[in-house]
Amino acid sequence: MNNYEICFQGEHYAFSELAAKKFLGESTVCHPRETFEQVFQSVRTNNPSLGIIPIENTLSGSIHRNYDLLLENSVRIIGEVNLRIELNLIAPKGVELDQVKAVYSHPAAIGQCRNFWMNHPNIEIIPTYDTAGSVKIIAEQGLTEAAAIASRQAAEDYNMNILLREIEDYPENYTRFLIISTEQINFGIPNKTSIVFATKHIPGALFKSLSVFFLRELNLLKIESRPLRGKPWQYIFYLDIEGSIQEETCQNALRHLEEIAGFIKVLGSYPASK
Amino acid sequence: MNNYEICFQGEHYAFSELAAKKFLGESTVCHPRETFEQVFQSVRTNNPSLGIIPIENTLSGSIHRNYDLLLENSVRIIGEVNLRIELNLIAPKGVELDQVKAVYSHPAAIGQCRNFWMNHPNIEIIPTYDTAGSVKIIAEQGLTEAAAIASRQAAEDYNMNILLREIEDYPENYTRFLIISTEQINFGIPNKTSIVFATKHIPGALFKSLSVFFLRELNLLKIESRPLRGKPWQYIFYLDIEGSIQEETCQNALRHLEEIAGFIKVLGSYPASK
Repeated sequence: MNNYEICFQGEHYAFSELAAKKFLGESTVCHPRETFEQVFQSVRTNNPSLGIIPIENTLSGSIHRNYDLLLENSVRIIGEVNLRIELNLIAPKGVELDQVKAVYSHPAAIGQCRNFWMNHPNIEIIPTYDTAGSVKIIAEQGLTEAAAIASRQAAEDYNMNILLREIEDYPENYTRFLIISTEQINFGIPNKTSIVFATKHIPGALFKSLSVFFLRELNLLKIESRPLRGKPWQYIFYLDIEGSIQEETCQNALRHLEEIAGFIKVLGSYPASK
Repeated sequence: MNNYEICFQGEHYAFSELAAKKFLGESTVCHPRETFEQVFQSVRTNNPSLGIIPIENTLSGSIHRNYDLLLENSVRIIGEVNLRIELNLIAPKGVELDQVKAVYSHPAAIGQCRNFWMNHPNIEIIPTYDTAGSVKIIAEQGLTEAAAIASRQAAEDYNMNILLREIEDYPENYTRFLIISTEQINFGIPNKTSIVFATKHIPGALFKSLSVFFLRELNLLKIESRPLRGKPWQYIFYLDIEGSIQEETCQNALRHLEEIAGFIKVLGSYPASK
């Protein structure tokens, strides 16, 4: 038993909730929120103090809205967890695959099942706000020619059948989630740091910025670029670095980056997901 | 008059069509396609031989699906054009703003009008396949409590009213479009080159890859990362470089990159948009 409470976007049995329980334990109390904006707002007002957000998927890529929200909100990243995403085609009991005319799911899940859509060109695709929420829609509206793409747990919770298991394009389908809070809580020894920065608009700016890590043998784990609003064709960069902000090497690198960058924000130091 | 024919995703008066006419001239024959996949397929089979795709927007960022499709399809980038995106709230004649209960538009346009949504929290947002297509939906279904977000030209074509002009969050709202073909056609002197490459999975790989350009004073204009499918937490990188593949410096840099990268594909050399 633990006393953790955390909020997530979607309905119960969304992958975000499964990831939260993998990270904090099965007894964690998870509070659904409609949007990512509401997750950030809840965390900012300590209601509850922890939130979980998906940040990237190994098939469909980064969730850019959450990168933007990490920049805009005063929260820190205190943990991460990787979850294998198994996507199942789920329908009410008695409904067979050849009766399914429409499939409901979140756009990210839809984008991870391109082979399924190619093999079933007559099925209408209906994007929704959540995977588990799609199962809920079918249950609440009593739809009988529809299916959803969601977790096994969502099928069980709504007492529905799994028509097809693991319809994602590749089995190497993982989503990386971040745990956010306004307070630092250590769930282990931090060994990964996330930052965001804007380069000055000069030639070689990105290369010089990355050199502060390379020169100190600090590995880059990920780089993501986003447009700088109001400055067309300029960008901000999100980096994940191997190392903790507590380490002198990492501090030196960031001090060096301050000489080059127009702006830096440390998003958090946390233990990397195993 | 010209004899160019080009295909684009969306309905007539979509921003892609406006961009195609800005680039090729008003008399260009533009063929609508439902999806980006269909645009690439049409170009691959010369039906027509030219296509136009949006690749990035200065507010909402990159259109990642098109980055993936540039990698998967044997086409080359032969041109680019930047278009200012003015988003208008459009409704049938006689419909006033306070009667509007739902607004239809493409998710990208929806994401560029966050201030409008905050100021109108009771309006339902309905994502669709296209901006101009949203105006078409309202016209064809005879909806009277609905509006669309689309171009001024789409409003005129469907004989509708513009309720609000330029509802995008920032006026610096531009989309960059790429012209694709299987054949090289020069619309000017190429001075920009787009490539995609995968680094080997070794420390400092990205830094070393970027050094081949920095060492030769070739400017990077954009970097975009995407997940490498089937290899969790590895990435491929898309670069835009200032320079033409015809120039020796650029050729040397790419030969140097071949020593470091596991894979390289040149997507095209073309004149940069002014």
